[in-house]
Amino acid sequence: MNIQIGIDYYPEQWSRELWESDANLMQETGVSTVRMAEFAWSRLEPAEGDYRFEWLDAAIDTFASRGMQIVLCTPTNTPPNWLTARYPDVLPLDEQLHVVRPGVRGHRCNNSPSLRRVGSAFVEAISRRYAKHPAVIGWQIDNEMHDQECHCDTCNQAFVAWLRQRYADLEELNREWGTVVWSGEYGDWAEITTPIGGGRPMNPSYMLEYKRFCSDSVGHLLNWQLEILRRNCPEQFVTHNMWQYPNTLDYYDLHRELDFVSFDYYPNELYRDYGDRFPRNGALTLDLVRGIKRQGFWVMEQLSGAQGAWMPIQRTPYPGLIRARSWQAIARGADRIVHFRWRSATVGAEQFWHGLIDHSNVPGRRFREFAQLTREVNRLGERLGGSVVANTVAILHSHDQHTALSLQAQAEGGMSYIDNLSSMHNAFLKMGVGTDVINWTEPLDGYKIVVVPSLFLLSEEVARRLERFAEQGGTVVLTNRTGVKNMRNVCEMRPLPGLLAEAAGVVVSEYDAIGRSEHAIRDAQGRIFAAQQWCDLLELRGAQAIAWYDNDFYEGVPAVTVNAFGAGQVYYVGTWPEPAYFHALFEELLAQTGLAPGLRLPEGVELSVRTKGEAAFRFLINLTNEPRVIELDTPCVSLLTGERLERQLILPALGVDILE
Amino acid sequence: MNIQIGIDYYPEQWSRELWESDANLMQETGVSTVRMAEFAWSRLEPAEGDYRFEWLDAAIDTFASRGMQIVLCTPTNTPPNWLTARYPDVLPLDEQLHVVRPGVRGHRCNNSPSLRRVGSAFVEAISRRYAKHPAVIGWQIDNEMHDQECHCDTCNQAFVAWLRQRYADLEELNREWGTVVWSGEYGDWAEITTPIGGGRPMNPSYMLEYKRFCSDSVGHLLNWQLEILRRNCPEQFVTHNMWQYPNTLDYYDLHRELDFVSFDYYPNELYRDYGDRFPRNGALTLDLVRGIKRQGFWVMEQLSGAQGAWMPIQRTPYPGLIRARSWQAIARGADRIVHFRWRSATVGAEQFWHGLIDHSNVPGRRFREFAQLTREVNRLGERLGGSVVANTVAILHSHDQHTALSLQAQAEGGMSYIDNLSSMHNAFLKMGVGTDVINWTEPLDGYKIVVVPSLFLLSEEVARRLERFAEQGGTVVLTNRTGVKNMRNVCEMRPLPGLLAEAAGVVVSEYDAIGRSEHAIRDAQGRIFAAQQWCDLLELRGAQAIAWYDNDFYEGVPAVTVNAFGAGQVYYVGTWPEPAYFHALFEELLAQTGLAPGLRLPEGVELSVRTKGEAAFRFLINLTNEPRVIELDTPCVSLLTGERLERQLILPALGVDILE
Amino acid sequence: MNIQIGIDYYPEQWSRELWESDANLMQETGVSTVRMAEFAWSRLEPAEGDYRFEWLDAAIDTFASRGMQIVLCTPTNTPPNWLTARYPDVLPLDEQLHVVRPGVRGHRCNNSPSLRRVGSAFVEAISRRYAKHPAVIGWQIDNEMHDQECHCDTCNQAFVAWLRQRYADLEELNREWGTVVWSGEYGDWAEITTPIGGGRPMNPSYMLEYKRFCSDSVGHLLNWQLEILRRNCPEQFVTHNMWQYPNTLDYYDLHRELDFVSFDYYPNELYRDYGDRFPRNGALTLDLVRGIKRQGFWVMEQLSGAQGAWMPIQRTPYPGLIRARSWQAIARGADRIVHFRWRSATVGAEQFWHGLIDHSNVPGRRFREFAQLTREVNRLGERLGGSVVANTVAILHSHDQHTALSLQAQAEGGMSYIDNLSSMHNAFLKMGVGTDVINWTEPLDGYKIVVVPSLFLLSEEVARRLERFAEQGGTVVLTNRTGVKNMRNVCEMRPLPGLLAEAAGVVVSEYDAIGRSEHAIRDAQGRIFAAQQWCDLLELRGAQAIAWYDNDFYEGVPAVTVNAFGAGQVYYVGTWPEPAYFHALFEELLAQTGLAPGLRLPEGVELSVRTKGEAAFRFLINLTNEPRVIELDTPCVSLLTGERLERQLILPALGVDILE
Repeated sequence: MNIQIGIDYYPEQWSRELWESDANLMQETGVSTVRMAEFAWSRLEPAEGDYRFEWLDAAIDTFASRGMQIVLCTPTNTPPNWLTARYPDVLPLDEQLHVVRPGVRGHRCNNSPSLRRVGSAFVEAISRRYAKHPAVIGWQIDNEMHDQECHCDTCNQAFVAWLRQRYADLEELNREWGTVVWSGEYGDWAEITTPIGGGRPMNPSYMLEYKRFCSDSVGHLLNWQLEILRRNCPEQFVTHNMWQYPNTLDYYDLHRELDFVSFDYYPNELYRDYGDRFPRNGALTLDLVRGIKRQGFWVMEQLSGAQGAWMPIQRTPYPGLIRARSWQAIARGADRIVHFRWRSATVGAEQFWHGLIDHSNVPGRRFREFAQLTREVNRLGERLGGSVVANTVAILHSHDQHTALSLQAQAEGGMSYIDNLSSMHNAFLKMGVGTDVINWTEPLDGYKIVVVPSLFLLSEEVARRLERFAEQGGTVVLTNRTGVKNMRNVCEMRPLPGLLAEAAGVVVSEYDAIGRSEHAIRDAQGRIFAAQQWCDLLELRGAQAIAWYDNDFYEGVPAVTVNAFGAGQVYYVGTWPEPAYFHALFEELLAQTGLAPGLRLPEGVELSVRTKGEAAFRFLINLTNEPRVIELDTPCVSLLTGERLERQLILPALGVDILE
Repeated sequence: MNIQIGIDYYPEQWSRELWESDANLMQETGVSTVRMAEFAWSRLEPAEGDYRFEWLDAAIDTFASRGMQIVLCTPTNTPPNWLTARYPDVLPLDEQLHVVRPGVRGHRCNNSPSLRRVGSAFVEAISRRYAKHPAVIGWQIDNEMHDQECHCDTCNQAFVAWLRQRYADLEELNREWGTVVWSGEYGDWAEITTPIGGGRPMNPSYMLEYKRFCSDSVGHLLNWQLEILRRNCPEQFVTHNMWQYPNTLDYYDLHRELDFVSFDYYPNELYRDYGDRFPRNGALTLDLVRGIKRQGFWVMEQLSGAQGAWMPIQRTPYPGLIRARSWQAIARGADRIVHFRWRSATVGAEQFWHGLIDHSNVPGRRFREFAQLTREVNRLGERLGGSVVANTVAILHSHDQHTALSLQAQAEGGMSYIDNLSSMHNAFLKMGVGTDVINWTEPLDGYKIVVVPSLFLLSEEVARRLERFAEQGGTVVLTNRTGVKNMRNVCEMRPLPGLLAEAAGVVVSEYDAIGRSEHAIRDAQGRIFAAQQWCDLLELRGAQAIAWYDNDFYEGVPAVTVNAFGAGQVYYVGTWPEPAYFHALFEELLAQTGLAPGLRLPEGVELSVRTKGEAAFRFLINLTNEPRVIELDTPCVSLLTGERLERQLILPALGVDILE
Repeated sequence: MNIQIGIDYYPEQWSRELWESDANLMQETGVSTVRMAEFAWSRLEPAEGDYRFEWLDAAIDTFASRGMQIVLCTPTNTPPNWLTARYPDVLPLDEQLHVVRPGVRGHRCNNSPSLRRVGSAFVEAISRRYAKHPAVIGWQIDNEMHDQECHCDTCNQAFVAWLRQRYADLEELNREWGTVVWSGEYGDWAEITTPIGGGRPMNPSYMLEYKRFCSDSVGHLLNWQLEILRRNCPEQFVTHNMWQYPNTLDYYDLHRELDFVSFDYYPNELYRDYGDRFPRNGALTLDLVRGIKRQGFWVMEQLSGAQGAWMPIQRTPYPGLIRARSWQAIARGADRIVHFRWRSATVGAEQFWHGLIDHSNVPGRRFREFAQLTREVNRLGERLGGSVVANTVAILHSHDQHTALSLQAQAEGGMSYIDNLSSMHNAFLKMGVGTDVINWTEPLDGYKIVVVPSLFLLSEEVARRLERFAEQGGTVVLTNRTGVKNMRNVCEMRPLPGLLAEAAGVVVSEYDAIGRSEHAIRDAQGRIFAAQQWCDLLELRGAQAIAWYDNDFYEGVPAVTVNAFGAGQVYYVGTWPEPAYFHALFEELLAQTGLAPGLRLPEGVELSVRTKGEAAFRFLINLTNEPRVIELDTPCVSLLTGERLERQLILPALGVDILE
C-alpha cells in the first residue's frame, strides 16, 4: 500500500457549505483519507434507538465522491447526556466514590452493562450501515482509551471475578500476596475491593493485580466492539487510536486482535538534547509504537498546529516542523499520517487545539506546509509503500516493569523505568543505529544485541530466553533492579540479579539507592562518568569488571561487568550512568559485533532506514532550526530532489531527505 | 460632604466599660463614623424570631451621644448555628456535593430559600428599628460577598431557569454553545447541571454562562436585602463592602442600585517596582473602585495593623504607611476612610488581624499615626469635600474578559488579563498621568485616549463605539487577543482582530503563544524591548508599523501598528512588551495629544488630582521609606503645612502633601 | 538491668524452618530480646472469637528455648478485614466523611465501640494466655499511635461529652471561646461538631480543644487495653512504641501510666550542621524521649537498613552508622535497643523497609556491624546497666505550645516551635553540655539554667514556678511569643510577655513578624548576628539590654535583655537569632553559673554522660564519616578498648568510645 496523507474531520461541527469547500480544497491538496464520526454519538443517536445516519451518509459522500477513503469511528468515548442521565451506571465512580460526570471525554465505566448494551446496539447499527460502503475502508474503536479507574459495584465484582480466575482459592491469594502483613488476610472474597479511597500505600501484589485488571477492563470495552465489527465488516480493518507512551494501559495486550496500531503524534518541539527524558525526541515513541505489533502503523492524529485546551496554548509549530515530524513518523514505520485537524474548532473545549487552518478559515503558513508534504508523499508514496523498518538491536520494553516500578519508587527522584529505557535508546539514536523496541516476552531471533533495562519482575521463561540468546552468541545488556521479584510482585529470596545471576556472572552484595545524589564510576580507560539513582555493589562470580565506583564507601567496587556466557556475553550495569557512558559502552559493543554505523550524525539529525526487497531508503531528518551537514559514506541519490550527492548532504533547518 | 475618618467596631466583643473608654478615645481623636453590627446575627437573634436589639441600641447611643455617625450592617454573611442546624439548605454544597460548614464566614448558599426567608425577616426587623435613628446614616449589606459556588438542587434549578431566560429553547442553546462537540448535546433542560465535580475542562460557553450565573446569584442575595432597606429606610444610604479586585464577581452589576461603592483596602506594603503585577501598588485598585460607579467611594476597611488569620502574621505597617495609604485612597477618590479595626480581637479566628490598638489595649505607635491622620483629615475635610477625580485617559476594564481569559489560559504563565491591564495602567501612573479605569461598555465622551487591553470577547456595540470614538478624533490602543470571540465565548470565523480589524488596519496572519519565552521587538528608533506571552504576526491593511519582531522566524514582521481612522487613530499592540515599551509608547501618545504631564515623578511617588470647581488639589504621596524630591513646574502652596513652595517639594519617607 | 540488644520479628511472615535458623543465628549473635505478634491479629483471630495462639506458642518457644526474652504486642493497630467488614464503626471517617479504608495501618476510629468490644476480648485472651509465660517479659500496646482524626457520630458525641466535662455550661463555653465573633455562638450542645470539612480557619479556642480531644481519644484506646493488661499481667511491664517528635499527640499524657517509654529511632543520616532544623541530629529526639517520664527508655525499632515503602528507598546506612546510632541512643538514656527488623519482608507494603539481612537471606555488611554492636553491648551491659543521664540545664518543652503555634502560624515560614526549641538545644549540644528536655509543667529542682522557648499559652502556675526558680537563684531564658494567651487560646489583654513581664523586666511595645526577612542584632561587644521570624521591640522596665536591633525602623531598640530577679536572673530574647548567637549567649551563661564544659568537641562529635553512683561514663560519638580528634581534659580509660588515653581520643569515622 502506498504511503498516504489524511485528515481528521468533524462534519457535525460545520455547515454543509463548508463540507463542500473543505472537500474541494482537500482534493486539490491531495488528501487521500478522511476520518470522521469520532465523537458524534449524540448527533447519530439523539435518543435511545433513534438512529440518524442520513447526515453522515451525506458527509461521507461529499468526500468519497472526490476520491477520498473514509475511516469511521465508534463513539463510545463520549456517552451522550441522555445515556448518562438514563443509565447512571455508565458514569464511573472515582476513588472517593464521587460520580465522574461528563465534561471532557472518557466519562464512562469500562465495565458498565448499560454502556455495553446501548453501545453494542449502536455499533451494530453503524457497522451494518457502512460495512459495504465502497469508500469506508476501516474502523477506529473509541479513541485514546485510558484506564479511568472506576470503583462502582460492577467494577468491584468484576475485579473479584478477575482474581478468582487467576487464583485457585483465597488461601492461594493470601499466600501469594503475603496478606498476613498488617493483618490484611481475606476471609471472604467479598472483603476484596478496588482501592477505594485511593493512594494509601497498599500491598504491592494487590496493587499490581489491580492495575492489570484496569488495563483488562479497557480491553473489555474494546473487545465487545471489536467482536461486532469483525462480524459485520470482515473486509474493513479495525484499529484503535492510542495515546502516547507512557500510559497505564498494556498496549501489547490491547492491540493483540487489531489489524494495526494507530496513535496520536503531537511532537511540537524542536530538537533539544533531552538526555534521558522521555518522550521528547519522538523517535522512541515511534519505535515503541512500531514495536507493539512489530509492523507498520498509522498516525491517526498528527501535529497540525499549536495545542491548547485544559493547558494553555503552546508555541506554534516552527516552520518546517509539521512536515519534518510527518516524515520522521514515516521514517520509523508509519504508513499513513492523518492530520488533526483540518480547521480549529470555533466551539467546545478544544477551541485552541489548532488545526491546519485557523478559525478565520484563511489557509496560512501551516496549511501551505501541509500541502507541500502531501505533494511529496503522494509523489513517493508508491515507491516507499511496502518498505519496512528492520534492525539488529532490540531494546526490551515491559509494561509490567513500568507499572511495578511506578507503584514503588526505587529511589529519590523516582527512577523512571521509561526514562531509563530512553537513556539507552538515545545512545543508539545519536549514533544513527536503529533499534527495535519490543515487548519483553517476544522472541529474539535475528537480533545481535538485546538491551534490557530493569527486569524488576522476572519470569523463568524470559530469564531462560535471554540465557539462550546469549548462549547462542547474542549480546545482552542487563541493568540494576533486575530479578528483584516474581510476577506476583513478591521479592525473591535469592541474591540479585536473581534468575539472571548466573548469566550475568555477578551477585549484588549490597545496594545503595543514591537517588539524585551525584556519584561517579571509572571505566578501564580511566574515564570518569557521573551516575545517579542506584548503585549495586557487585561481587564477581565469573564476570569481569569493566567499570568501578569512584567514590563513597564502595570506591573501587565493580559497577559494570561483562560475562562470557556460551557463545555470547552478558553485560550488567549496576548503576544509572550519564548518557555519555552508554554511548561509550554501546559504541564498543557495536564495534565488537560489527554493527558500527556508517554515518556520523550531527546533533539533532536522525537517521532511520526502511527497506523493501533490495532497496534501502535512508531517511535523514534535521530536527533543529539550523542547517546541518552530513558527511556521506557513499554517493547517494536524493529521492526528494532527484539530485545525486557525492560527499555531503546539506539539510536546511528542519530539512528532510531520503537517500537511496 | 466633608472627607472624614471612621472606625470599624464590634461592640459584641467587648464589655460595656470598654465601650465607654473606647468611645471617649475616639471622640478625642476625632473619629466621625462607627460601623457596627456587621457579623452579630447570633447576638441580635439568638433564636429564630427572638430579636434582641437592646444592646445594640445602647452601643449606638454610646457613640452617637459623642457625636459620631453610625453605619449598620446586615449580617447575612454569618448565618448562626441555630439557622444552619434548623435549615440545612442554608449551607452550600461544594463541587463534590460536600456540605460547606460554618467556620470562617460566608457559609451560605446564595439562592437558599431559608436564608432568604429568615434573613428577610431579620433585615425587616433591624431596618425598621433604625430607619429613623438620627445617628444611623446608612447600611452595609452583608460583607465581602463572593461567589461561594453551590451545587445544591436549588442552585441547579436556578441555573437552568437563568438559562431559559436567555435562550429561546434548547436548540438555540445547543447551537450557540456548540455542544455537538464530544456528544454534549442536551435533549432535556434537566440534563444541564452546575459543574458538579469541578475543574474538568468543559465547554467554554457553558462555563462562561455558569460564572455569570454565579455572579448573578450573589446579586440575588444582595438585592432582596436592598429591596427591604430601600422600602424601610428611604433616607439612609445603602452600600456593600467589597473585596479587592480581581474577583469572580461582576462588581459593575452588583453595585448598579447601590448608592456608592465601599471596599477593603489593606495595602500593607512599601513601594516596590512591581512592573505589571497587580494589585500591589494600590493605585490601580483605587482607580478600578472609583470606576465602578464613576464617582467617589468609601474605604470601609482600611489598613490599621499587621494582618494575620488563616495566613501567618504579616509585617507590621512601616511607620507612616497607615497615614500615607489613607491619603492615597483619598487622592484617588475616597470620601470616607473607615479603619479596620479599633483594637485587635482577643478571641476568634482573626485574633492576629491587628487593629489600631494592640491586645494589650495600650495605644502605641500605630494609634498615634492614626490620630495624626484624623487631625489632618478633619482640618482639610471641608476644603477637600466635594472634589472629584477627573481624567482624560481611560482604560477599559471588562469583567467578562477577566472571566473568559481565566477559564482558558492563552499562554504558558497564564496571560493574566488584570496583570496586563495593570502593566498599561502602571505606565501612566509612573508618568503622573491620571487614568480612569471604567467598564468597557461605558460611554467614552470626554476622553482623549482610550486604552483597551484584550477584548477577547467582543460585541458589535463596543466595537462600533470604539470606532466612533476614533473617527471623532480619539486615540484608541488595542492589543492582541482582541475580537477572538463573540459574547457566547465562541470563536469568530473572521481574521483577527475581528470586528476591529478595519479600525486597526491590520490582520493577524498567524500567532505564536510564546508564554514565558523571552522575545524582543524593535521600534522605529531601533530601541529593543523584551516581549512575552504572545506574538501576533501582523499584516498591514492600511496601518503603519511602528515596531517589529526582532527574533524567531518572524523577525522583521510588524508587532505594533498605528492606523489613521477618521479624525483619530488606532494603535494595535500585537505582543506584551515590557513596561518600558508602554512607557515610551504612551509618552509619545501624550505628546501628540497635548496631554504631557507637568511633573516628573521620582520612583515611588504617586500623583493624583482632585478638582472642585476651579480648585485643583494635587496629592503627592511618597510610598517609599526614603525621602524624595519633586521638582515643581509652578510655585504652589502646601495644604498640609500652609507653606509656599517655589521650586521643590521634599517628601520624607512615606510623606504626603497636597498642593493647590 | 543490663543494657541489651533485641530484634523485631514477625514469625507469621516466615516458615518454621526459617524460625529455627533465624533463632540460631540470633542466639549466636547475642540477641537477648525478641518482639513479636505486633500486627498479627488476622492470624491470631481469623474470625471473631476464634483464637489461634498455638503458632504463637511455638514461635515464642523457638526463641525462648534459646534464652531470649519475649515482648508481645496488642494488634489493635491493624483491625483485620473480617472486623472492619462486620463492624463498620471500626473504620474512621475523614474530614469529608469518607471512610478511611484498610491499606496501610491505623485504620480505626479511636473511639469505636466495636473495636473496643472485640479488641478487649482479644487483649483479654492473649494477656491471660501469656501472663505467666516465663519468657514473656512485657507488652507493647498497639504501635505508633497517632490521631487519625475521625468524624463519625461516636466521635462527635465523645467530643461534646469531653467538652461538657470541661465547661459548666454552654454560656461558659461561648464566653471563653469568644464564639460571638462571626455569629458562632452555640445555642445547643448538639450544634457543636468536630471540624468536618477540614481546614477552614476556625475559632482557635475550639481548634485547640479539638486537638486536645483527639490526643485524649488516642489515650482512650490505649487505656482500655492498659487496664486489661494491668489486671491480667501484674508482673509484666507495659509500654507503647511511639513515633518520633514532632507529633500531634501529647506524649506526656499518653505515657503517664505506662512503665517506660519506647519509640522508633530511624536516624539514617550522617552528621550535617542542621542548624535549627529538627530532628535531624537525633540527640534532641533522644533527650525529648528521655524527658517524657524523666527516666531511661527503650528503642523498640532501631535503624537497621535503608527505609522504603510509600516513600522511595533511602540511602543505605553508611558503614558504622547502625552501631553509632545505637550507642548514641544508649548514651542519652536508652536501656534496650530493639532493631527493626531481622530480615527485609518479601511481601507487603514495606518490602523495601530493609532489615539487618537482605531479601536474599545472606547476612552482609549491615549484619556484621550489628553483630559487633551486640557483642560490645553484651560485654558492657552490666557495667553500664543502672546508670542514668542527669543534667543541670533544662529546656522546657510544651505540647500545648506546639499545637497552638501549629494552628496559628505566627510568621511567614511558619515559626516552628520545635525548630526554635531545637535551635537552642543545638547550641548546648555543640558545646557538649547535656540538657534535659522536660515537660513545661515539671518541677525545676536541681537545675541551674532553664531555657523556655515561646510560652505562647501561659498558665499562672507555670509563670509563678519560673519566677520562684529565678528568685531562688536560677537563670531563666525566655523568648518572644511568651505570655500571649491564656490556656483557652485567648489573647491576654496585658502587655507582653504577659504574666512574665515583671520577671523579665521588659514590655513589648510593638512587634514585627518579619518572617523570612533577614534582620540583624548587635550585641554589647558589637558583634552582628542575623535574626529572622520575629522582632519584639522591647521597652526596659528594670531589665538591662544586652543586644539591640541593627536595622529597620527600630534600629537601636533593645532585642535581648537580662533582668536581675531575686537571687537569679531572667533573660528575654525578643527575636530568633542565628545559632551562633545562642552559642555565644549560652557560653556566657554557663561561664557565669560555673557550668562550662570540660571538653571542646569537634564538629559532628556528640558527648553524653551516664552516671551510676560515683562512676561517670562519658560517651563520645563521631557522627561524621571522617576521623575526629578530641583533646581530653584528663586522662581516661576507654571502656570499649580498655586502653588508657592520656591526652587525646581519636575517633574513626562513625567511631564510638566510652570513657570512664
